[in-house]
Amino acid sequence: MSLNKSRVLRTEPLDYKEAKWATLVKTTYTDPEGVERTWESSERLTRPAGSDIDGVGVVAILQDPSKPESEPRILLQKQWRPPVDATVIEVPAGLIDPKETPQQCAVRELREETGYVGEVVDGGFGVSPVMFNDPGFCNTNLRMIHLTVNLCLPANQNPQPELEDNEFIETFSIPLKDLWAECREFEKNGYAIDARVGTLAEGVECARRWKL
Amino acid sequence: MSLNKSRVLRTEPLDYKEAKWATLVKTTYTDPEGVERTWESSERLTRPAGSDIDGVGVVAILQDPSKPESEPRILLQKQWRPPVDATVIEVPAGLIDPKETPQQCAVRELREETGYVGEVVDGGFGVSPVMFNDPGFCNTNLRMIHLTVNLCLPANQNPQPELEDNEFIETFSIPLKDLWAECREFEKNGYAIDARVGTLAEGVECARRWKL
Repeated sequence: MSLNKSRVLRTEPLDYKEAKWATLVKTTYTDPEGVERTWESSERLTRPAGSDIDGVGVVAILQDPSKPESEPRILLQKQWRPPVDATVIEVPAGLIDPKETPQQCAVRELREETGYVGEVVDGGFGVSPVMFNDPGFCNTNLRMIHLTVNLCLPANQNPQPELEDNEFIETFSIPLKDLWAECREFEKNGYAIDARVGTLAEGVECARRWKL
Repeated sequence: MSLNKSRVLRTEPLDYKEAKWATLVKTTYTDPEGVERTWESSERLTRPAGSDIDGVGVVAILQDPSKPESEPRILLQKQWRPPVDATVIEVPAGLIDPKETPQQCAVRELREETGYVGEVVDGGFGVSPVMFNDPGFCNTNLRMIHLTVNLCLPANQNPQPELEDNEFIETFSIPLKDLWAECREFEKNGYAIDARVGTLAEGVECARRWKL
Protein backbone atom coordinates (compact mmCIF):
# COMPACT_ATOMS: atom_id res chain seq x y z
CA MET A 1 0.00 0.00 0.00
CA SER A 2 1.29 3.42 -0.95
CA LEU A 3 2.32 5.44 2.09
CA ASN A 4 3.07 8.99 1.04
CA LYS A 5 5.38 10.68 3.54
CA SER A 6 5.28 13.89 1.53
CA ARG A 7 2.40 16.33 1.97
CA VAL A 8 1.06 19.11 -0.23
CA LEU A 9 0.66 22.25 1.88
CA ARG A 10 -0.84 24.46 -0.84
CA THR A 11 -1.08 24.99 -4.57
CA GLU A 12 -1.45 28.38 -6.20
CA PRO A 13 -1.41 29.82 -9.72
CA LEU A 14 2.10 30.80 -10.78
CA ASP A 15 3.00 33.90 -12.78
CA TYR A 16 5.37 32.89 -15.59
CA LYS A 17 7.59 35.86 -14.69
CA GLU A 18 8.30 34.19 -11.34
CA ALA A 19 8.83 30.66 -12.71
CA LYS A 20 12.28 29.10 -13.10
CA TRP A 21 11.46 25.60 -14.41
CA ALA A 22 8.23 25.80 -16.41
CA THR A 23 6.32 28.33 -18.44
CA LEU A 24 3.00 28.91 -20.18
CA VAL A 25 2.98 29.78 -23.90
CA LYS A 26 0.49 31.09 -26.44
CA THR A 27 1.16 30.02 -30.03
CA THR A 28 -0.45 31.90 -32.91
CA TYR A 29 -0.57 29.82 -36.09
CA THR A 30 -2.32 29.40 -39.40
CA ASP A 31 -4.19 26.16 -39.99
CA PRO A 32 -4.01 24.24 -43.32
CA GLU A 33 -6.79 26.44 -44.71
CA GLY A 34 -4.93 29.63 -43.80
CA VAL A 35 -7.16 30.52 -40.84
CA GLU A 36 -5.32 32.21 -37.97
CA ARG A 37 -5.79 30.44 -34.61
CA THR A 38 -4.17 30.31 -31.17
CA TRP A 39 -3.16 27.45 -28.86
CA GLU A 40 -2.17 27.39 -25.18
CA SER A 41 0.59 25.07 -23.98
CA SER A 42 3.41 24.69 -21.48
CA GLU A 43 7.16 24.15 -21.74
CA ARG A 44 10.15 23.30 -19.58
CA LEU A 45 12.72 26.09 -19.23
CA THR A 46 15.56 23.63 -18.73
CA ARG A 47 16.20 22.16 -22.20
CA PRO A 48 19.87 22.81 -23.00
CA ALA A 49 20.63 24.99 -26.05
CA GLY A 50 21.17 22.74 -29.05
CA SER A 51 19.43 19.71 -27.46
CA ASP A 52 16.38 18.25 -29.20
CA ILE A 53 15.17 16.62 -25.97
CA ASP A 54 14.43 17.52 -22.36
CA GLY A 55 15.66 14.25 -20.97
CA VAL A 56 15.69 10.47 -21.14
CA GLY A 57 13.74 7.55 -19.75
CA VAL A 58 15.55 4.29 -19.07
CA VAL A 59 14.30 0.77 -19.70
CA ALA A 60 16.90 -1.11 -17.64
CA ILE A 61 16.70 -4.90 -17.84
CA LEU A 62 18.45 -6.89 -15.10
CA GLN A 63 20.20 -10.00 -16.40
CA ASP A 64 22.15 -12.74 -14.67
CA PRO A 65 24.35 -14.41 -17.31
CA SER A 66 25.28 -17.13 -14.78
CA LYS A 67 21.60 -18.23 -14.82
CA PRO A 68 20.55 -18.24 -18.50
CA GLU A 69 17.12 -19.57 -17.58
CA SER A 70 16.34 -16.60 -15.33
CA GLU A 71 13.68 -14.26 -16.69
CA PRO A 72 14.43 -10.63 -17.62
CA ARG A 73 13.41 -8.16 -14.93
CA ILE A 74 12.72 -4.46 -15.41
CA LEU A 75 14.00 -1.87 -12.95
CA LEU A 76 11.27 0.44 -11.63
CA GLN A 77 11.01 3.23 -9.08
CA LYS A 78 8.57 4.63 -6.58
CA GLN A 79 8.76 8.41 -6.37
CA TRP A 80 6.27 10.89 -4.91
CA ARG A 81 5.58 13.67 -7.42
CA PRO A 82 4.23 17.08 -6.38
CA PRO A 83 2.31 17.77 -9.64
CA VAL A 84 0.11 14.70 -9.11
CA ASP A 85 0.30 14.42 -5.28
CA ALA A 86 0.90 10.68 -5.50
CA THR A 87 3.68 8.12 -5.42
CA VAL A 88 4.30 7.23 -9.05
CA ILE A 89 5.61 3.98 -10.53
CA GLU A 90 8.22 5.15 -13.04
CA VAL A 91 11.26 4.08 -14.98
CA PRO A 92 14.55 5.74 -14.05
CA ALA A 93 14.70 9.08 -15.88
CA GLY A 94 16.27 12.48 -15.82
CA LEU A 95 16.93 15.75 -17.59
CA ILE A 96 19.83 15.90 -20.01
CA ASP A 97 22.93 17.95 -19.20
CA PRO A 98 24.47 20.31 -21.76
CA LYS A 99 26.69 18.46 -24.29
CA GLU A 100 25.69 15.04 -22.91
CA THR A 101 24.47 12.36 -25.34
CA PRO A 102 21.17 10.63 -24.51
CA GLN A 103 23.11 7.39 -23.94
CA GLN A 104 25.50 9.09 -21.48
CA CYS A 105 22.54 10.69 -19.72
CA ALA A 106 20.82 7.31 -19.33
CA VAL A 107 23.90 5.57 -17.93
CA ARG A 108 24.52 8.49 -15.54
CA GLU A 109 20.92 8.71 -14.33
CA LEU A 110 20.72 4.95 -13.80
CA ARG A 111 23.92 5.01 -11.73
CA GLU A 112 22.86 8.06 -9.70
CA GLU A 113 19.28 6.96 -9.06
CA THR A 114 19.79 3.21 -8.58
CA GLY A 115 23.54 2.56 -8.21
CA TYR A 116 23.49 0.09 -11.12
CA VAL A 117 25.95 0.22 -14.02
CA GLY A 118 24.14 -0.36 -17.31
CA GLU A 119 25.17 -0.85 -20.92
CA VAL A 120 23.26 0.47 -23.93
CA VAL A 121 21.56 -2.31 -25.92
CA ASP A 122 23.08 -2.44 -29.40
CA GLY A 123 21.57 -3.22 -32.77
CA GLY A 124 19.45 -0.07 -33.12
CA PHE A 125 17.07 -0.81 -30.25
CA GLY A 126 19.16 1.08 -27.67
CA VAL A 127 17.92 4.58 -28.46
CA SER A 128 14.29 5.38 -29.28
CA PRO A 129 13.06 8.16 -31.56
CA VAL A 130 12.25 11.43 -29.81
CA MET A 131 8.86 10.91 -28.15
CA PHE A 132 6.51 13.71 -27.07
CA ASN A 133 4.81 13.22 -23.71
CA ASP A 134 1.58 15.12 -24.45
CA PRO A 135 1.95 17.05 -27.73
CA GLY A 136 -1.49 18.70 -27.58
CA PHE A 137 -0.59 20.22 -24.20
CA CYS A 138 3.17 20.71 -23.91
CA ASN A 139 6.42 20.29 -25.82
CA THR A 140 8.18 18.06 -23.26
CA ASN A 141 9.89 15.06 -24.77
CA LEU A 142 12.49 12.36 -24.26
CA ARG A 143 14.31 9.52 -25.84
CA MET A 144 13.91 6.14 -24.17
CA ILE A 145 17.25 4.41 -23.73
CA HIS A 146 17.36 0.62 -23.35
CA LEU A 147 20.08 -0.64 -21.03
CA THR A 148 21.03 -4.08 -19.76
CA VAL A 149 22.40 -4.46 -16.25
CA ASN A 150 24.75 -7.44 -15.87
CA LEU A 151 24.21 -8.64 -12.31
CA CYS A 152 27.50 -10.60 -12.37
CA LEU A 153 29.62 -7.45 -12.67
CA PRO A 154 31.40 -6.54 -9.40
CA ALA A 155 30.03 -2.97 -9.76
CA ASN A 156 26.48 -4.34 -9.61
CA GLN A 157 26.90 -6.49 -6.47
CA ASN A 158 25.99 -3.81 -3.99
CA PRO A 159 24.46 -0.87 -5.87
CA GLN A 160 24.48 2.42 -3.97
CA PRO A 161 22.35 5.29 -5.32
CA GLU A 162 23.71 8.85 -5.11
CA LEU A 163 20.55 10.92 -4.72
CA GLU A 164 20.18 14.68 -4.58
CA ASP A 165 18.95 16.01 -1.24
CA ASN A 166 15.46 16.60 -2.71
CA GLU A 167 15.24 13.13 -4.29
CA PHE A 168 13.50 10.28 -2.48
CA ILE A 169 13.43 7.26 -4.76
CA GLU A 170 12.82 3.59 -3.99
CA THR A 171 14.10 1.16 -6.62
CA PHE A 172 12.79 -2.36 -7.22
CA SER A 173 12.40 -4.84 -10.07
CA ILE A 174 9.71 -7.14 -11.46
CA PRO A 175 9.65 -9.71 -14.29
CA LEU A 176 9.10 -7.85 -17.57
CA LYS A 177 6.41 -10.35 -18.56
CA ASP A 178 4.36 -9.44 -15.45
CA LEU A 179 4.50 -5.68 -16.00
CA TRP A 180 0.90 -5.27 -17.13
CA ALA A 181 -0.61 -7.30 -14.26
CA GLU A 182 1.64 -5.50 -11.78
CA CYS A 183 0.46 -2.09 -13.06
CA ARG A 184 -3.10 -3.07 -12.19
CA GLU A 185 -1.97 -4.11 -8.70
CA PHE A 186 -0.07 -0.87 -8.17
CA GLU A 187 -3.15 1.14 -9.09
CA LYS A 188 -5.31 -0.90 -6.68
CA ASN A 189 -2.79 -0.12 -3.96
CA GLY A 190 -2.95 3.63 -4.45
CA TYR A 191 0.05 4.24 -6.68
CA ALA A 192 -0.06 6.37 -9.82
CA ILE A 193 1.33 4.88 -13.04
CA ASP A 194 3.71 6.81 -15.26
CA ALA A 195 2.68 6.57 -18.93
CA ARG A 196 6.05 5.12 -19.98
CA VAL A 197 5.60 2.19 -17.58
CA GLY A 198 1.91 1.64 -18.36
CA THR A 199 2.25 1.94 -22.13
CA LEU A 200 5.32 -0.31 -22.25
CA ALA A 201 3.25 -2.85 -20.30
CA GLU A 202 0.42 -2.53 -22.81
CA GLY A 203 2.82 -3.13 -25.69
CA VAL A 204 4.20 -6.28 -24.07
CA GLU A 205 0.66 -7.48 -23.41
CA CYS A 206 -0.50 -6.65 -26.96
CA ALA A 207 2.35 -8.73 -28.39
CA ARG A 208 1.40 -11.66 -26.16
CA ARG A 209 -2.35 -11.42 -26.86
CA TRP A 210 -1.96 -10.98 -30.61
CA LYS A 211 0.90 -13.53 -30.76
CA LEU A 212 3.16 -11.12 -32.65
CA MET B 1 7.77 13.06 -46.11
CA SER B 2 5.98 15.32 -43.63
CA LEU B 3 4.47 18.37 -45.33
CA ASN B 4 3.19 20.76 -42.68
CA LYS B 5 0.54 23.04 -44.11
CA SER B 6 0.18 24.81 -40.77
CA ARG B 7 2.61 27.57 -39.80
CA VAL B 8 3.55 29.07 -36.45
CA LEU B 9 3.33 32.87 -36.70
CA ARG B 10 4.56 33.65 -33.19
CA THR B 11 4.87 32.27 -29.68
CA GLU B 12 4.76 34.40 -26.56
CA PRO B 13 4.61 33.89 -22.79
CA LEU B 14 1.04 33.61 -21.55
CA ASP B 15 -0.28 35.09 -18.30
CA TYR B 16 -2.32 32.44 -16.48
CA LYS B 17 -5.02 35.04 -15.89
CA GLU B 18 -5.60 35.16 -19.65
CA ALA B 19 -5.47 31.40 -20.24
CA LYS B 20 -8.58 29.30 -20.82
CA TRP B 21 -7.15 25.82 -21.42
CA ALA B 22 -3.93 25.52 -19.44
CA THR B 23 -2.37 26.99 -16.30
CA LEU B 24 0.89 27.17 -14.38
CA VAL B 25 0.94 26.07 -10.73
CA LYS B 26 3.29 26.33 -7.76
CA THR B 27 2.96 23.52 -5.21
CA THR B 28 4.37 23.95 -1.73
CA TYR B 29 4.97 20.61 0.00
CA THR B 30 6.92 18.90 2.74
CA ASP B 31 9.34 16.15 1.74
CA PRO B 32 9.62 12.83 3.67
CA GLU B 33 12.04 14.49 6.10
CA GLY B 34 9.63 17.36 6.80
CA VAL B 35 11.57 19.94 4.78
CA GLU B 36 9.33 22.51 3.05
CA ARG B 37 9.94 22.73 -0.72
CA THR B 38 8.22 24.10 -3.85
CA TRP B 39 7.59 22.62 -7.32
CA GLU B 40 6.47 24.24 -10.58
CA SER B 41 4.09 22.42 -12.89
CA SER B 42 1.26 22.86 -15.38
CA GLU B 43 -2.33 21.65 -15.59
CA ARG B 44 -5.24 21.51 -18.01
CA LEU B 45 -8.26 23.62 -17.03
CA THR B 46 -10.67 21.31 -18.83
CA ARG B 47 -10.90 18.22 -16.59
CA PRO B 48 -14.59 17.76 -15.72
CA ALA B 49 -15.56 17.97 -12.03
CA GLY B 50 -15.57 14.46 -10.58
CA SER B 51 -13.43 12.98 -13.37
CA ASP B 52 -10.10 11.37 -12.46
CA ILE B 53 -8.78 11.79 -16.03
CA ASP B 54 -8.37 14.49 -18.67
CA GLY B 55 -9.09 12.18 -21.56
CA VAL B 56 -8.46 8.87 -23.28
CA GLY B 57 -6.13 7.40 -25.86
CA VAL B 58 -7.41 4.67 -28.15
CA VAL B 59 -5.56 1.56 -29.30
CA ALA B 60 -7.90 0.56 -32.14
CA ILE B 61 -7.07 -2.74 -33.85
CA LEU B 62 -8.59 -3.36 -37.27
CA GLN B 63 -9.74 -6.93 -37.79
CA ASP B 64 -11.27 -8.73 -40.73
CA PRO B 65 -13.06 -11.83 -39.37
CA SER B 66 -13.62 -13.04 -42.96
CA LYS B 67 -9.81 -13.39 -43.30
CA PRO B 68 -8.62 -15.07 -40.07
CA GLU B 69 -5.05 -15.14 -41.38
CA SER B 70 -4.87 -11.35 -41.83
CA GLU B 71 -2.58 -9.61 -39.37
CA PRO B 72 -3.88 -7.13 -36.79
CA ARG B 73 -3.40 -3.49 -37.85
CA ILE B 74 -3.32 -0.48 -35.54
CA LEU B 75 -5.12 2.73 -36.45
CA LEU B 76 -2.87 5.81 -36.33
CA GLN B 77 -3.21 9.49 -37.13
CA LYS B 78 -1.13 12.34 -38.48
CA GLN B 79 -1.96 15.63 -36.79
CA TRP B 80 0.01 18.88 -36.71
CA ARG B 81 0.33 20.12 -33.14
CA PRO B 82 1.04 23.76 -32.29
CA PRO B 83 2.95 23.05 -29.02
CA VAL B 84 5.62 21.06 -30.91
CA ASP B 85 5.30 22.71 -34.38
CA ALA B 86 5.35 19.32 -36.08
CA THR B 87 3.04 16.70 -37.53
CA VAL B 88 2.74 14.04 -34.86
CA ILE B 89 2.06 10.32 -35.26
CA GLU B 90 -0.59 9.64 -32.63
CA VAL B 91 -3.32 7.23 -31.61
CA PRO B 92 -6.89 8.58 -31.74
CA ALA B 93 -7.50 10.48 -28.50
CA GLY B 94 -9.62 13.15 -26.93
CA LEU B 95 -10.75 14.94 -23.80
CA ILE B 96 -13.51 13.37 -21.75
CA ASP B 97 -16.94 15.01 -21.58
CA PRO B 98 -18.75 15.47 -18.25
CA LYS B 99 -20.51 12.26 -17.07
CA GLU B 100 -19.02 10.22 -19.93
CA THR B 101 -17.25 6.93 -19.11
CA PRO B 102 -13.75 6.41 -20.55
CA GLN B 103 -15.14 3.62 -22.74
CA GLN B 104 -17.90 5.88 -24.12
CA CYS B 105 -15.34 8.63 -24.72
CA ALA B 106 -13.08 6.22 -26.66
CA VAL B 107 -15.89 4.92 -28.89
CA ARG B 108 -17.10 8.50 -29.52
CA GLU B 109 -13.64 9.90 -30.31
CA LEU B 110 -12.84 7.00 -32.63
CA ARG B 111 -16.09 7.54 -34.53
CA GLU B 112 -15.66 11.33 -34.73
CA GLU B 113 -11.97 11.30 -35.67
CA THR B 114 -11.87 8.25 -37.97
CA GLY B 115 -15.47 7.27 -38.76
CA TYR B 116 -14.89 3.73 -37.48
CA VAL B 117 -17.18 1.99 -35.01
CA GLY B 118 -15.16 0.15 -32.36
CA GLU B 119 -15.94 -2.25 -29.54
CA VAL B 120 -14.14 -2.28 -26.19
CA VAL B 121 -11.91 -5.35 -25.77
CA ASP B 122 -13.24 -7.44 -22.91
CA GLY B 123 -11.45 -9.53 -20.31
CA GLY B 124 -9.91 -6.67 -18.32
CA PHE B 125 -7.56 -5.48 -21.07
CA GLY B 126 -10.03 -2.95 -22.47
CA VAL B 127 -9.37 -0.15 -19.98
CA SER B 128 -5.89 0.72 -18.71
CA PRO B 129 -5.05 2.16 -15.31
CA VAL B 130 -4.86 5.96 -15.15
CA MET B 131 -1.51 6.89 -16.69
CA PHE B 132 0.28 10.21 -16.14
CA ASN B 133 1.89 11.75 -19.23
CA ASP B 134 4.79 13.53 -17.48
CA PRO B 135 4.25 13.49 -13.71
CA GLY B 136 7.35 15.54 -12.84
CA PHE B 137 6.08 18.36 -15.06
CA CYS B 138 2.27 18.30 -15.23
CA ASN B 139 -0.78 16.45 -13.92
CA THR B 140 -2.24 15.55 -17.35
CA ASN B 141 -3.36 11.94 -17.61
CA LEU B 142 -5.50 9.47 -19.50
CA ARG B 143 -6.75 5.95 -19.64
CA MET B 144 -5.86 3.98 -22.75
CA ILE B 145 -8.88 2.16 -24.14
CA HIS B 146 -8.38 -0.89 -26.35
CA LEU B 147 -10.96 -1.26 -29.11
CA THR B 148 -11.38 -3.70 -31.96
CA VAL B 149 -12.83 -2.52 -35.26
CA ASN B 150 -14.66 -5.25 -37.17
CA LEU B 151 -14.08 -4.42 -40.83
CA CYS B 152 -16.99 -6.67 -41.89
CA LEU B 153 -19.59 -4.49 -40.17
CA PRO B 154 -21.65 -2.39 -42.62
CA ALA B 155 -20.88 0.70 -40.47
CA ASN B 156 -17.17 0.20 -41.15
CA GLN B 157 -17.36 -0.14 -44.94
CA ASN B 158 -17.02 3.54 -45.72
CA PRO B 159 -15.90 5.35 -42.55
CA GLN B 160 -16.56 9.11 -42.57
CA PRO B 161 -14.89 11.23 -39.87
CA GLU B 162 -16.82 14.13 -38.34
CA LEU B 163 -14.07 16.61 -37.50
CA GLU B 164 -14.35 19.94 -35.71
CA ASP B 165 -13.51 22.95 -37.90
CA ASN B 166 -10.11 23.30 -36.16
CA GLU B 167 -9.24 19.58 -36.52
CA PHE B 168 -7.13 18.37 -39.46
CA ILE B 169 -6.47 14.68 -38.97
CA GLU B 170 -5.28 12.05 -41.45
CA THR B 171 -6.01 8.45 -40.42
CA PHE B 172 -4.10 5.37 -41.60
CA SER B 173 -3.20 1.90 -40.34
CA ILE B 174 -0.08 -0.29 -40.14
CA PRO B 175 0.52 -3.87 -38.99
CA LEU B 176 0.91 -3.84 -35.20
CA LYS B 177 4.02 -6.01 -35.45
CA ASP B 178 5.75 -3.35 -37.60
CA LEU B 179 5.00 -0.46 -35.26
CA TRP B 180 8.53 -0.06 -33.92
CA ALA B 181 10.23 -0.11 -37.34
CA GLU B 182 7.60 2.28 -38.69
CA CYS B 183 8.24 4.74 -35.84
CA ARG B 184 11.90 4.92 -36.94
CA GLU B 185 10.79 5.59 -40.53
CA PHE B 186 8.36 8.30 -39.45
CA GLU B 187 11.11 10.06 -37.52
CA LYS B 188 13.45 9.89 -40.53
CA ASN B 189 10.71 11.50 -42.62
CA GLY B 190 10.27 14.47 -40.31
CA TYR B 191 7.31 13.38 -38.20
CA ALA B 192 7.22 13.64 -34.43
CA ILE B 193 6.24 10.54 -32.44
CA ASP B 194 3.67 10.68 -29.67
CA ALA B 195 4.89 8.83 -26.57
CA ARG B 196 1.87 6.51 -26.54
CA VAL B 197 2.68 5.28 -30.05
CA GLY B 198 6.44 5.03 -29.48
CA THR B 199 6.22 3.36 -26.08
CA LEU B 200 3.58 0.87 -27.23
CA ALA B 201 5.96 0.04 -30.08
CA GLU B 202 8.81 -0.48 -27.62
CA GLY B 203 6.67 -2.82 -25.53
CA VAL B 204 5.74 -4.91 -28.57
CA GLU B 205 9.41 -5.03 -29.58
CA CYS B 206 10.58 -5.91 -26.03
CA ALA B 207 8.17 -8.85 -25.96
CA ARG B 208 9.50 -10.08 -29.32
CA ARG B 209 13.18 -9.61 -28.42
CA TRP B 210 12.91 -11.18 -24.97
CA LYS B 211 10.52 -13.88 -26.24
CA LEU B 212 8.00 -13.15 -23.50
